[in-house]
Amino acid sequence: MKDSITRTPFPSSEKIYVKGQMFNINVPMRKIKLTPTVEVINGEKVLHENAPVVVYDTSGPFSDPNQEIDLRKGLPRIRKQWIEDRGDAEQLSQLTSEYGRMRLADPSLDHLRFELHHLPYRAKEGRKLTQFHYAKAGIITAEMEYVAIRENLNNQELGINSYITPEYVRQEIAAGRAIIPANINHLECEPMIIGRNFLVKINTNIGNSAVSSSIEEEVEKAVWSCRWGGDTLMDLSTGANIHETREWIIRNCPVPVGTVPIYQTLEKVNGKVELLTWELYRDTLIEQCEQGVDYFTIHAGLLQKHIPFANQRLTGIVSRGGSIMAQWMTLKNEENFLYTHWDEICTILAQYDVGVSIGDGLRPGSLSDANDKAQFGELETMGMLTQIAWQHDVQVMIEGPGHVPVHKIKENMDKQLHDCFEAPFYTLGPIVTDIAPGYDHITSGIGATMIGWYGTSMLCYVTPKEHLGLPDKEDVRVGVITYKIAAHAADIAKGHPGAEIRDNALSKARFDFRWKDQFNLSLDPERAREYFNVRHGAEEGSEFCTMCGPNFCAMRISKKLKGECNK
Amino acid sequence: MKDSITRTPFPSSEKIYVKGQMFNINVPMRKIKLTPTVEVINGEKVLHENAPVVVYDTSGPFSDPNQEIDLRKGLPRIRKQWIEDRGDAEQLSQLTSEYGRMRLADPSLDHLRFELHHLPYRAKEGRKLTQFHYAKAGIITAEMEYVAIRENLNNQELGINSYITPEYVRQEIAAGRAIIPANINHLECEPMIIGRNFLVKINTNIGNSAVSSSIEEEVEKAVWSCRWGGDTLMDLSTGANIHETREWIIRNCPVPVGTVPIYQTLEKVNGKVELLTWELYRDTLIEQCEQGVDYFTIHAGLLQKHIPFANQRLTGIVSRGGSIMAQWMTLKNEENFLYTHWDEICTILAQYDVGVSIGDGLRPGSLSDANDKAQFGELETMGMLTQIAWQHDVQVMIEGPGHVPVHKIKENMDKQLHDCFEAPFYTLGPIVTDIAPGYDHITSGIGATMIGWYGTSMLCYVTPKEHLGLPDKEDVRVGVITYKIAAHAADIAKGHPGAEIRDNALSKARFDFRWKDQFNLSLDPERAREYFNVRHGAEEGSEFCTMCGPNFCAMRISKKLKGECNK
Repeated sequence: MKDSITRTPFPSSEKIYVKGQMFNINVPMRKIKLTPTVEVINGEKVLHENAPVVVYDTSGPFSDPNQEIDLRKGLPRIRKQWIEDRGDAEQLSQLTSEYGRMRLADPSLDHLRFELHHLPYRAKEGRKLTQFHYAKAGIITAEMEYVAIRENLNNQELGINSYITPEYVRQEIAAGRAIIPANINHLECEPMIIGRNFLVKINTNIGNSAVSSSIEEEVEKAVWSCRWGGDTLMDLSTGANIHETREWIIRNCPVPVGTVPIYQTLEKVNGKVELLTWELYRDTLIEQCEQGVDYFTIHAGLLQKHIPFANQRLTGIVSRGGSIMAQWMTLKNEENFLYTHWDEICTILAQYDVGVSIGDGLRPGSLSDANDKAQFGELETMGMLTQIAWQHDVQVMIEGPGHVPVHKIKENMDKQLHDCFEAPFYTLGPIVTDIAPGYDHITSGIGATMIGWYGTSMLCYVTPKEHLGLPDKEDVRVGVITYKIAAHAADIAKGHPGAEIRDNALSKARFDFRWKDQFNLSLDPERAREYFNVRHGAEEGSEFCTMCGPNFCAMRISKKLKGECNK
Repeated sequence: MKDSITRTPFPSSEKIYVKGQMFNINVPMRKIKLTPTVEVINGEKVLHENAPVVVYDTSGPFSDPNQEIDLRKGLPRIRKQWIEDRGDAEQLSQLTSEYGRMRLADPSLDHLRFELHHLPYRAKEGRKLTQFHYAKAGIITAEMEYVAIRENLNNQELGINSYITPEYVRQEIAAGRAIIPANINHLECEPMIIGRNFLVKINTNIGNSAVSSSIEEEVEKAVWSCRWGGDTLMDLSTGANIHETREWIIRNCPVPVGTVPIYQTLEKVNGKVELLTWELYRDTLIEQCEQGVDYFTIHAGLLQKHIPFANQRLTGIVSRGGSIMAQWMTLKNEENFLYTHWDEICTILAQYDVGVSIGDGLRPGSLSDANDKAQFGELETMGMLTQIAWQHDVQVMIEGPGHVPVHKIKENMDKQLHDCFEAPFYTLGPIVTDIAPGYDHITSGIGATMIGWYGTSMLCYVTPKEHLGLPDKEDVRVGVITYKIAAHAADIAKGHPGAEIRDNALSKARFDFRWKDQFNLSLDPERAREYFNVRHGAEEGSEFCTMCGPNFCAMRISKKLKGECNK
């Protein structure tokens, strides 16, 4: 199994760890080393050093050759001491959820099971332990210092003072404008922050469906998507052995893991929507809370009154969770049980510091349905639910569309900020035209860039297979890179300090014909090098390439003009 | 050679021709036929017909199985009669350019030469014949009616009245807000219009460089890029036999062809910039005017005074034409000869109705250089040149960046509209982050969508190989589709009537599980079908797919809710 996990370090890169000043923490980053710029003065070569570029690193211990990885043991449990030091959690003597206990006791699952069984943590009676609680109480946690260090792009190495401080992080969380999804049972997680005054983040999805893939494949998919830059990972599995697969993923996942618990609940009743009950859902929530899921998508904002609006649409309901709840409400003629049990849900989530991502069951599935009564009606309910969740100290984000034409994107952001009191927005795309299946990473990457610029905190990636099939590894890579582009373009547009450092370093390398540095600084060094090498028209040291040839190389001529050319 | 040309018709599509009412013209379109929606009422299948969708078609006669194609003869010369009917042009008895005559007389080139030699047309002494001239004189041309019919998306078949009339086209051209690039010597060209009150267009580039490809490959590349949706084609060849290659391309190209004449001029002096002269450039202009090039990129706005600003940049000058002219000015210590001979250039262009695309020699090559003094200084000069060209009745568009961060894009559009008096803007991207070589079709597709929405008339495509090497056919396809997405998303955002018809038809097909219709309506039917078939998880008739499986198919559940599901 070990062999199937990608561990190759990025070229010319070194994994570094920045130490905390308040806490005993080591924040991982990737330092990209550059070659010097060569100038020829009076026939003598003069070398000008280029400072290394330090980049945000989501790849976890897998890209660190000094760390031993054993998927059977899971990643180092870096947060264990932090949580024990705070003293608000206790380790339970057994799993709370019936289903969790049942699976653990079933010997026929032994061959599938993650071997090391960690007993779960939960808040002590009467104690509160969410990051939101601490932030409001004026307490800076290790997680807060961790993300503050992480957000200061490139600065550590360059000796620039940090501009994002742990105290600023605390304030943003206390205001509800940012969250750190960090279940006290996901001790392997490297904390990260989602909020519009921080770097724009991206989520990737994995998951087996009815037919589909093995546990090993799923773990490697998680590692793979983190490698390319996925900031969080949603496990959307709907097939068999969801429980065991999830355990493997969480124990080996360096980024927060999200799920949609209604999926597993539906599996438990063999896909029969009419058999769904609050009790079964509740047990599933607890099961997953104790495994370490960091945030749940919960479609509690979709109410009976919204369904008629959805039925008038061109493409009805396209959210899986939304369609399940709408069907349940219609069959039972009852209000959404996620809505009617919202207080209880929040009480459970608060005990483990699981964040809630309020699902947009009525997100538009076509341009025609964008910004309609169904969508915006649900958004208002989501705002109301946000305030209740906050009363329970639960960290909240809000999910958003979907398919939206370019000129209607901003309204989504503005309305979300208003209706949901600035809780972070987490959008899927949006896709800006319906006519390009096979290229929906691009149609959605366009919308994602724009809505990221307008203020969305996290972008859920879309792969080229969207609408057509399940993504393979190459699709995941292309989807992640596309969304890193969107997030980074938005960071620059929002003026995130330091965001342009990498762009400038790469452009300087380009102008200097430092081809290797250009590749190494890029989001996908392997792809850049591969495309360059296709034609073999230029060596990595040459001062032009196949595109134009020497006489038509603008940069070469331009350098000559500056008297800098060394030929 | 014939075999290497792609002629496969698009699936379930029929080439149709809409007749003109004023002129004897046949405007090609592609009609996509759809299958009916199946509804089950009381166990009986009821079929609801779905109207075909008619789409804009740039693929020329190649996609019409009823047309015989012989590359040696070239495409039908559909515009010949129109130009003769207007009576403002005369056919010359020989080529005017010295170089053109020399190449024609050289028997060693016989094996390369397009066999049928057409004598060129030119304006009769004292006559004017540009579309701009006719428009200002209140004359509607065949070209104007042709593009008016073309712009009325989907409407012919649906029986909706046309909203874009030939008179509206005439007014937009007369105002300088739109151009029809249509050299009187490119008689094979299917007219199209570039202007911000029309559909956003895309340009593709081909061309061999110093090493590189054969004439046959270049012609197929042209056919290939038109097939996927390229509206115009720039031949940027810089290698040997440019003249002969261009002849083959123009005679077989159904879309307007653009060039950068300084490239060929530089080839004529073996790449020695100091040997460039106005006389040689002038002869090159005439040579290409008489071959049928529809528009020229001319870097006349880059002046001596701008060079110091460029030298302060991170990436200097990245336009090939711009760097050549800057070098010439520096070597000679003279003003740009394209600027000093601007009147003469315009006089020549007007005789053939060749449009000018004023090149932005100082477009930024990195985010760091965007919107700087060099770029905007040149833009002001370009505005001044626009007015002079208009005095000569020459049709004008303005080239734009380049690399621009998201938040600085709109300023480019606003300033261009102001400084260049609403002449159409024609931009390369812009690329919104420098850090993704290998994915620059995406980084630039994002910027292209935004600037298209803001008012850019034509978007110059970028392929995945940008900055790294020359594109192959697959790169061209991906680049074109990406830019069709950008242009179409901008059309929708601008509210172009009818633009959303195709989106809505595809989304309805999606909701109906009419998979084949979904593929056939998409920008790249082959790719969509290929991705769908990868997993074989669902038949083309099935009501779910591998993504979610039957129990988790939101659309299936949603249809059930509407009581429409036929299972």
